[in-house]
Amino acid sequence: MRDQLKKHIAEVITLSDSEMTEFVNLFSETRLSKRSMLVSPGDVVTQEYYVLKGCLKAYYLDQYGEKHIIQFAIEDWWISDFEAFFGQKPAKLYVEAIEDSVLLAIDNKILETLYQRIPKFERFFRIKTTRAFLSSQKRILSTLEKTAAERYIDFCSTYPFIEKRIANYHIANYLGIKPESLSRIRRQLEVAS
Amino acid sequence: MRDQLKKHIAEVITLSDSEMTEFVNLFSETRLSKRSMLVSPGDVVTQEYYVLKGCLKAYYLDQYGEKHIIQFAIEDWWISDFEAFFGQKPAKLYVEAIEDSVLLAIDNKILETLYQRIPKFERFFRIKTTRAFLSSQKRILSTLEKTAAERYIDFCSTYPFIEKRIANYHIANYLGIKPESLSRIRRQLEVAS
Repeated sequence: MRDQLKKHIAEVITLSDSEMTEFVNLFSETRLSKRSMLVSPGDVVTQEYYVLKGCLKAYYLDQYGEKHIIQFAIEDWWISDFEAFFGQKPAKLYVEAIEDSVLLAIDNKILETLYQRIPKFERFFRIKTTRAFLSSQKRILSTLEKTAAERYIDFCSTYPFIEKRIANYHIANYLGIKPESLSRIRRQLEVAS
Repeated sequence: MRDQLKKHIAEVITLSDSEMTEFVNLFSETRLSKRSMLVSPGDVVTQEYYVLKGCLKAYYLDQYGEKHIIQFAIEDWWISDFEAFFGQKPAKLYVEAIEDSVLLAIDNKILETLYQRIPKFERFFRIKTTRAFLSSQKRILSTLEKTAAERYIDFCSTYPFIEKRIANYHIANYLGIKPESLSRIRRQLEVAS
């Protein structure tokens, strides 16, 4: 199953076989059944996770008990409470499995050692983090400039195939609209296509 | 004036004198007078900018002509239309000087060559981009979890001393509140302190 991670790395940087093997062996496999929690508020978060199989959501529960989905992750995505992971602060988010999932976890101390040994990984994570930064900027901007229908189309291109795997109300929550509005948008797009 | 950039780099990575000199010489100086534009929508953006002196804002103008401030930058900050810069797409934002400003500009092609020559810069920009990603995530989260007063306090800690340099209505715009609400929050905080 680690071949999937190797392929993911090779799309961004070129490594020797031994470097690649060394890297993928730094990960530990974590299995998570549907509805179980990977991270909860208050946790010390020392790991980030690459999704081999399954689907997860990261969300914030506000003081009124309202859920706000910050991120989904499917195969080939990374997930964690990144503020807690990078900033070494207690977690604020929940990260929960939507489907039974298999993850590869890497520890931040091990990553630091890796950067010293194989600096090419600085490049890999610089490029991955730049993409994450852009998608986060895009999300801020898209709430300002786009209609709900346009945001739904963006969502389908960011998370291809995910719309069949995730409940309507989850997607509506991520988009910041009511489930009824999402159903209406989907019907309109079907008629138009 | 390049000593300021050297100090900024040295806070994150350790370079030899010759590497440092090579790096700072890759930048070109740009002077911008108050209210002039560094970037406008549609521009091809090949540079990102380090602020030596002055103050700028990056904003999106929506279809109703409403301005939404995405970022401020003061001394020691980086600014650009990052989606355009990294994603090689036409700019969507305006980047405008709020004060007379002096910037150091670096080109993305030159940066790519630098990464090949001195891989330590992968590390520098990985760490800077991680911080930018976190502050962008924090902004998404803070609109969900925090009151306007708490967001204003966050703003003052993110941009220290900036609140004296920027008009009330700019800060209110960034926080997504009315200028009157910001004035009320400031009065309440003065009474409380």
